[in-house]
Amino acid sequence: MKAAYHKPDEKTLQGLKDVANKLRILSIKATCASNSGHPTSCCSMAELMSVLFFNTMRYKVEDPRNQCNDRFVLSKGHAAPILYAVWAEAGYLKESDLLNLRKIDSDLEGHPTPKLQFVDMATGSLGQGLGAACGMAYTGKHFDKSSYRVYCMLGDGECAEGSVWEAMAFASHYKLDNLVAVIDVNRLGQSEPTSLQHDMETYRKRCEAFGWNTYVVDGHDVEELCKAFWQAQQVKGKPTCIVAKTLKGKGLKDIEDNLNWHGKAIPKDRAEALLKELEALIQVPNKTLCPELPKDDAAPADLSPILLPSPPAYKKGEKVAPRRAYGVALTRLGQSNQRVVALDGDTKNSTFAETFKKAFPDRYIECFIAEQNMVGVAMGCATRDRTVAFASTFSAFLSRAYDQIRMGAVSQTNVNLVGSHCGVSIGEDGPSQMALEDLAMFRAIPTCTVFYPSDAVSTERAVELSANTKGMCFIRTSRPESEVIYSPDEKFEVGVAKVVRQSDKDHVTVIGAGVTLHEALAAADMLARKNIRVIDPFTIKPLDASTILASARATGGRIITVEDHYKEGGLGEAVLSAVGEEPGIVVTRIAVTSVPRSGKPQELMDLYGISAKHIANAVRQTFAN
Amino acid sequence: MKAAYHKPDEKTLQGLKDVANKLRILSIKATCASNSGHPTSCCSMAELMSVLFFNTMRYKVEDPRNQCNDRFVLSKGHAAPILYAVWAEAGYLKESDLLNLRKIDSDLEGHPTPKLQFVDMATGSLGQGLGAACGMAYTGKHFDKSSYRVYCMLGDGECAEGSVWEAMAFASHYKLDNLVAVIDVNRLGQSEPTSLQHDMETYRKRCEAFGWNTYVVDGHDVEELCKAFWQAQQVKGKPTCIVAKTLKGKGLKDIEDNLNWHGKAIPKDRAEALLKELEALIQVPNKTLCPELPKDDAAPADLSPILLPSPPAYKKGEKVAPRRAYGVALTRLGQSNQRVVALDGDTKNSTFAETFKKAFPDRYIECFIAEQNMVGVAMGCATRDRTVAFASTFSAFLSRAYDQIRMGAVSQTNVNLVGSHCGVSIGEDGPSQMALEDLAMFRAIPTCTVFYPSDAVSTERAVELSANTKGMCFIRTSRPESEVIYSPDEKFEVGVAKVVRQSDKDHVTVIGAGVTLHEALAAADMLARKNIRVIDPFTIKPLDASTILASARATGGRIITVEDHYKEGGLGEAVLSAVGEEPGIVVTRIAVTSVPRSGKPQELMDLYGISAKHIANAVRQTFAN
Repeated sequence: MKAAYHKPDEKTLQGLKDVANKLRILSIKATCASNSGHPTSCCSMAELMSVLFFNTMRYKVEDPRNQCNDRFVLSKGHAAPILYAVWAEAGYLKESDLLNLRKIDSDLEGHPTPKLQFVDMATGSLGQGLGAACGMAYTGKHFDKSSYRVYCMLGDGECAEGSVWEAMAFASHYKLDNLVAVIDVNRLGQSEPTSLQHDMETYRKRCEAFGWNTYVVDGHDVEELCKAFWQAQQVKGKPTCIVAKTLKGKGLKDIEDNLNWHGKAIPKDRAEALLKELEALIQVPNKTLCPELPKDDAAPADLSPILLPSPPAYKKGEKVAPRRAYGVALTRLGQSNQRVVALDGDTKNSTFAETFKKAFPDRYIECFIAEQNMVGVAMGCATRDRTVAFASTFSAFLSRAYDQIRMGAVSQTNVNLVGSHCGVSIGEDGPSQMALEDLAMFRAIPTCTVFYPSDAVSTERAVELSANTKGMCFIRTSRPESEVIYSPDEKFEVGVAKVVRQSDKDHVTVIGAGVTLHEALAAADMLARKNIRVIDPFTIKPLDASTILASARATGGRIITVEDHYKEGGLGEAVLSAVGEEPGIVVTRIAVTSVPRSGKPQELMDLYGISAKHIANAVRQTFAN
Repeated sequence: MKAAYHKPDEKTLQGLKDVANKLRILSIKATCASNSGHPTSCCSMAELMSVLFFNTMRYKVEDPRNQCNDRFVLSKGHAAPILYAVWAEAGYLKESDLLNLRKIDSDLEGHPTPKLQFVDMATGSLGQGLGAACGMAYTGKHFDKSSYRVYCMLGDGECAEGSVWEAMAFASHYKLDNLVAVIDVNRLGQSEPTSLQHDMETYRKRCEAFGWNTYVVDGHDVEELCKAFWQAQQVKGKPTCIVAKTLKGKGLKDIEDNLNWHGKAIPKDRAEALLKELEALIQVPNKTLCPELPKDDAAPADLSPILLPSPPAYKKGEKVAPRRAYGVALTRLGQSNQRVVALDGDTKNSTFAETFKKAFPDRYIECFIAEQNMVGVAMGCATRDRTVAFASTFSAFLSRAYDQIRMGAVSQTNVNLVGSHCGVSIGEDGPSQMALEDLAMFRAIPTCTVFYPSDAVSTERAVELSANTKGMCFIRTSRPESEVIYSPDEKFEVGVAKVVRQSDKDHVTVIGAGVTLHEALAAADMLARKNIRVIDPFTIKPLDASTILASARATGGRIITVEDHYKEGGLGEAVLSAVGEEPGIVVTRIAVTSVPRSGKPQELMDLYGISAKHIANAVRQTFAN
């Protein structure tokens, strides 16, 4: 039997209207106090927030990050004040705290971050919320198998971001009927009206074409909203989008629906009168509405150290591509813990995420060719420590998600990103497929640990460490088959380099990683005088400065770095960073210095000057000097 | 009177079928020769290419980059062999050259690049072609006012990329009826079927919902294709999308429509028989079809040195935000040359692109909140030297387009990107809006010149130089008001730093840029012993190594760098790079080292250690040592 909708009683409806106006008042007061922020973007969504938080959503007010709670993602992060207001109205924050908005000693920042317990994903770069919400909804449905639902509030302006449509396609493909997107169509962008303004039917068509159950509603009618959110709960097999027609600055005389009020506090001389008008609309000023509690049907996830079930099964001297070792490692880790999940963007047969998929099809998420969304979904999966997520693609294509990655640091995400096909050593496919800036990208992420393993054994350990390292992790896996140089029982740690070749008479330290570590070893073999110390940094960030410094001092202050990456921001500059405050050390850097081309891997490494013979020449140069 | 469609005669239709099979044959032969590549992705689109290049498009075969030609963008760049084949069939390439596919000494690379005259935009990172095509179509319609049309061929897999839908929304918003997108719906991705497989009606709904005139066609029926492309030419006010149902590997027995044939050359033992079958289908082996010539209605654009009409009109000591100076500079440059155009993503009132828009509304393109597309459109506008394009947004949001930027280097683009709101000095909005990795991003682009002007005068000169510098340019403009420190007649050059304070007794060199240059000057004033040499690098890439080295040598080998950027990949590492091979130089780097928060600009500069007092402390430290 189909559930029947019961219209809330008049008292409840009035209460929801009252809450909406209280939220407006609090948003205005907070932004007046900070003299910056986005009160008009808050006012358009006041009824939406009121109904969501006091009629629709189920959550524990005193424990906002409880794993059983419904999730809420404020994709339009600039409306942060109303998010803070709603948690004040619910009783979690003090109303007086709202006046500390944007102050340096307050966690009520200009845009929401997970410093606040009720925020899972930092937002403020538009168009990113829905991807994360998809990850949460997928996790709720498939990994947690829980009844919690996920709500994501978007602005209309941000619907121009392609990432929104990547998420829309993903959510319908996976029939995420526990996901509700709300679009606050307030017509006005920052600098001019949005492209679609109040063309609600085009929004409807787009959402429906992308496979969503869609309701176009009056976003200021609490009764209509209660019904629409209730209906969304009944729909099976499809996510629901509530497209809400609203007015920016709703309720603010001479400001409502007017241009040039984006991101501006209400001037002090006008605020008082406007607040009075809003206050006059409130019938019951004291708090009367309580959110419903969630079902306790999601257990805490056990993410205690996740260890490989046995040492890597490779033999020294064997040839194995690190990218292949990644697939094996992840699969073995997946045997140890049910919460390890994998994602890929239709490159799984190249990155070897496919190995994991074959073993654990239920824990693999195919994200198709939409890297922004893949990274967003992975971060969503990893929120509230529900999963340990690994997302892979060609490393070059992680550049597509650099804004998500940047925001991931603000979000304190623990996601693990794996990039294969780095550098010119991929060969014939040419520069569009060669990651040559990925180390620069990831090194500049403050929370990120950057692994660059050089053989199958160290790749396996990198994957294991990555699963247990807080913050973001990036693993750069190489395409070519590479000799296994470590024994299975070799221990690896974050920030600890390996000296892979040394003697008492070493003249120069050569630092390589991935293919260039093997080229460095080959260079050592090529030279008549083999007194070269060769270092494998294992992690590029943090870099093992003490081993490198000690080695440099032992080799006359001479360092040569060699990398399959552009000269900027990669291994060479990481090494310079580590030794920059030490006088008397000279670093010679070998790297790719121009846009490469197609060719065979070895030909390209020669042409772009990073092969053994070039390293050998650089070493000879140090003897000559 | 409406034009009437005339069905091509039987001979022409047979000729088009023959060409399609010839293209298949050439694609297979080329990928067999290279033993890699994507023959099956070529075979699905053989009729589409045949009809486009030999029935629909108007171009000069012998002059592929002529400004009057119709444009073609192969968004599905991995199908490069059939693009090369079509130019061989047209007579521009030698058929025998096709066998050099992917060889190191051939420009017929794995994915197309503008080393080839018939390629405007490098492709191979999926989903990027349509944005560039939008830029070409917008330019054709509004700047060139020419009759040339733009065709963009997409794969179905890449339609999962959000950037495609950004471009779809853009093209319909601007009614680009000179633009035709073709989606080759061959059902199969790299590692599994696409999300929509052959669900043609969903493609139709999505394209129509995004405002496109849409035809769903049989992609292997040359007659249907001739008609659809003809119809597209008649449509006014809307772009047209041809959604073509095709089979991957069409025409190849036991391969057609089968999985596991993506990106694989046909095995030698099967190729011969398959080629014979295709050859048997060809009725007239010799060339019979000639493309139509274009109208000569686009004149060459004059992009000879574009100079400011007069020196900057700022006075030393005046306070002006560099971002504001950007708007003024661009407007003044726009007075000098009609081909200067500007783009922004709904931040024009923050970046000050609005100043240009107000002066030249017809040369401003609002791209709404879709940075990937904005950058793609800008690059499209700049192809064939039709315009000098400047695209601006918050610098943090350029990270959204990093894949497009990376590919821009492969595309040899001359686009100019301008990022405002860099660093913690933007203040209250918080970390989501602060660019702290943008220098790392752009330094790692091999063709990129990175400007980081510190006052209004140098900003104006940066904009002027940027317009005339080959390759990509990035200008980092700061948000806070900053003192004008240069006189209007100061000369600026790429790669030439300014020593802004010095004496004979200087003890240490301090290098800052943007806000930190002013902090460095303040630090010098704060110190009792003011013997600090202060350097403004002006361009971070190329960096003026000789001035820095000379200065370091003159100041006891002591350098302090200070930047409103993360420690990795920015100014500090650029300086380390410049001095890394010099012994005896010690570089102390001051930078932001953790994810920042909201607060007032000066409070944040203090909290994150980049303000004058921290610089002064670092200087004092050098005296102590």
